[in-house]
Amino acid sequence: MGLIVQKFGGTSVGDVEKIQNVAGRVAEEKQNGNDVVVVVSAMGKTTDKLVEMANELSSSPSKREMDMLLTTGEQVTISLLALALKEKGLDAVSYTGWQAGILTESVHGNARILDIDPNKIKEDLAAGRVVVVAGFQGVTDSGEITTLGRGGSDTTAVALAATLNADKCDIYTDVTGVYTTDPRYVKGARKLLGVSYDEMLELANLGAGVLHPRAVEFAKNFGVTLEVRSSMEKERGTVIEEEIAMEQNLVVRGIAFEDQITRVSIIGLDNSITSLPTIFTTLAKNHINVDIIIQSGTGTDKANISFSIKSSDLKETLEVLEKNKEVLNYEAVESETGLSKVSIVGAGMISNPGVAAKMFEVLAAEGVQVKMVSTSEIKVSTVVTEQLMVKAVEALHDAFELSNVPVQA
Amino acid sequence: MGLIVQKFGGTSVGDVEKIQNVAGRVAEEKQNGNDVVVVVSAMGKTTDKLVEMANELSSSPSKREMDMLLTTGEQVTISLLALALKEKGLDAVSYTGWQAGILTESVHGNARILDIDPNKIKEDLAAGRVVVVAGFQGVTDSGEITTLGRGGSDTTAVALAATLNADKCDIYTDVTGVYTTDPRYVKGARKLLGVSYDEMLELANLGAGVLHPRAVEFAKNFGVTLEVRSSMEKERGTVIEEEIAMEQNLVVRGIAFEDQITRVSIIGLDNSITSLPTIFTTLAKNHINVDIIIQSGTGTDKANISFSIKSSDLKETLEVLEKNKEVLNYEAVESETGLSKVSIVGAGMISNPGVAAKMFEVLAAEGVQVKMVSTSEIKVSTVVTEQLMVKAVEALHDAFELSNVPVQA
Repeated sequence: MGLIVQKFGGTSVGDVEKIQNVAGRVAEEKQNGNDVVVVVSAMGKTTDKLVEMANELSSSPSKREMDMLLTTGEQVTISLLALALKEKGLDAVSYTGWQAGILTESVHGNARILDIDPNKIKEDLAAGRVVVVAGFQGVTDSGEITTLGRGGSDTTAVALAATLNADKCDIYTDVTGVYTTDPRYVKGARKLLGVSYDEMLELANLGAGVLHPRAVEFAKNFGVTLEVRSSMEKERGTVIEEEIAMEQNLVVRGIAFEDQITRVSIIGLDNSITSLPTIFTTLAKNHINVDIIIQSGTGTDKANISFSIKSSDLKETLEVLEKNKEVLNYEAVESETGLSKVSIVGAGMISNPGVAAKMFEVLAAEGVQVKMVSTSEIKVSTVVTEQLMVKAVEALHDAFELSNVPVQA
Repeated sequence: MGLIVQKFGGTSVGDVEKIQNVAGRVAEEKQNGNDVVVVVSAMGKTTDKLVEMANELSSSPSKREMDMLLTTGEQVTISLLALALKEKGLDAVSYTGWQAGILTESVHGNARILDIDPNKIKEDLAAGRVVVVAGFQGVTDSGEITTLGRGGSDTTAVALAATLNADKCDIYTDVTGVYTTDPRYVKGARKLLGVSYDEMLELANLGAGVLHPRAVEFAKNFGVTLEVRSSMEKERGTVIEEEIAMEQNLVVRGIAFEDQITRVSIIGLDNSITSLPTIFTTLAKNHINVDIIIQSGTGTDKANISFSIKSSDLKETLEVLEKNKEVLNYEAVESETGLSKVSIVGAGMISNPGVAAKMFEVLAAEGVQVKMVSTSEIKVSTVVTEQLMVKAVEALHDAFELSNVPVQA
């Protein structure tokens, strides 16, 4: 007997049959004797269709009106799921974000949750009802409808789990869990039974894509145990919590990678204290996302700066730099496309020196040249040529014994 | 300078182009120096599609969840219309029913409006904003989403006009106004410049179909001047108000008609005081809508009852009567299909005796046999054979000088 928050994303509720499947998963949890709160996203491509109509009507749609428009998507799903649950003989009630008492700051398109009033939901749970809540949305104290931005439904689920003191928050998705690396590229990829919040944060940011970083942070801050699992398959997923059982004893828990990376280098930059902030503020203002940054100061009055960006941002980056050449006062700009980022992630690194060194050895042995390096306490990222990305990942996956993790089901 | 409430139905906002057209109509009214509140329905077939999904999931969908589901339809329209208005350079803001302060009773599927808090809308109007409100929907004092039933958006518009003390409530639709009779059947049909609330009520109930009777009643009770007009054509529509300018001096203002009517007669019924309520309560319980009822009591202990129904209800009516034969204690049931109802409507009848007599004369002269009659203060309805329906309407249209009404544009 406990309380479970279940979250189902857009593909898991993509049509009427899938909603019936979700109702089945909820019913199982009820039959196990648990109280259940379900958080759902908009059905499949609903959001895209709404955005398309808005774009036909407006070149720069008002964020307030976009929130008004897009929040209908989850409202459709909650009512349909409640109908499906009732058809299965369960008592169920659906709530929009504002009905569920999800109070956010007064920002449209990307609001943060300020508070949740849990009273109505608690009453329903006490009466034996399944409560179905619209993800991604909330309301300001002046009654304006807001949305929580990308991954918002994950955040809704975690916030509800924290507020209701739920035993667990299950994130149902179209993959069966978090893997040591992307199984579409590496045959030896294994599902992990557990990762820590910090590891998941690094993996999520590095494009593992199953869970939004903001939701992971929220879960970490409030100690909510997450499980990422499949809405179609019944096997165990990956548990994300603070203390991971160390029976697997892995120094590295996952290898993330991303292609279409470009390195940009600014040569002969004035070695003044304002150069660095000026460059990156200018780029940020132009919405160019810079990832790894390396400064090779030489002690002279000129410095070189390298940073990595998505290749799709290269054209605009070069334009921005050219336009600001006088202000930035540099000699030349160089760039190299066709790169990729390969990262190893694992909380075990903290207590195991030499992990980065081992990574470089493995890459060198495979003939993979490292062009940039960036490290955090639990991560080492390298930039290598795109052609060797998968080879590098496979070699690291073997070297850090991830291919030896037992297959889970 | 005044305040206009405009209501646009589902076909008027059926796609992105039509929403742009509606934005244009709103902009014109603003350019005329008026404040504008716009009430809109769900886009075209949206509601049907949502109902279809609900029916796939549930054999008897919960009314609460259906309200949750269907109210998304208008929410999509208000946001898109607000975007279209902003694109035209107008300041606009959209509100759902609950945001607009539309408080209803706690009934799902068919709630009545209890109160409207106009403060937010008044502030917006004072700030020069166009306010776009979702029709058909409201909220209970415990925060449950409700809908107002059929014609609900008309009711929302009229209720807002009453609360805001608007100068006029314009109901935009796919016809250019209220006609003396259906122009699809009678070439001489003319658009009326004005009808009274009571006439409109009779015409609406008789299937003229441009305006929901409940909205007309609401308008009558609160003295809201309505105008029914086309969302595509720019010509004047039909004004509905209490005092109609009598320059047209018409005793009869409209002729309504409806085919596929069936007469059912119950023969040899016990002439007891409970027979009549028993029959019609039984039929009502089975959702059979009875229109005209005629009792030909003969002073003996047996009576005959005739009533008219839609032909599509005949099979079920006969089954219900057969099933209850013992309780109802009658001798036989007869029915006649292939009938139609033809009605003349006009407030002028009250002060002009002999209007019914003239109607019967006209019908007799055309060889049209009257099978049933029902009268009210401003209406005479007759049931005649379906083949002669249009002939009867044309003859009445000429005889009551409706064909002489000047053509309006």
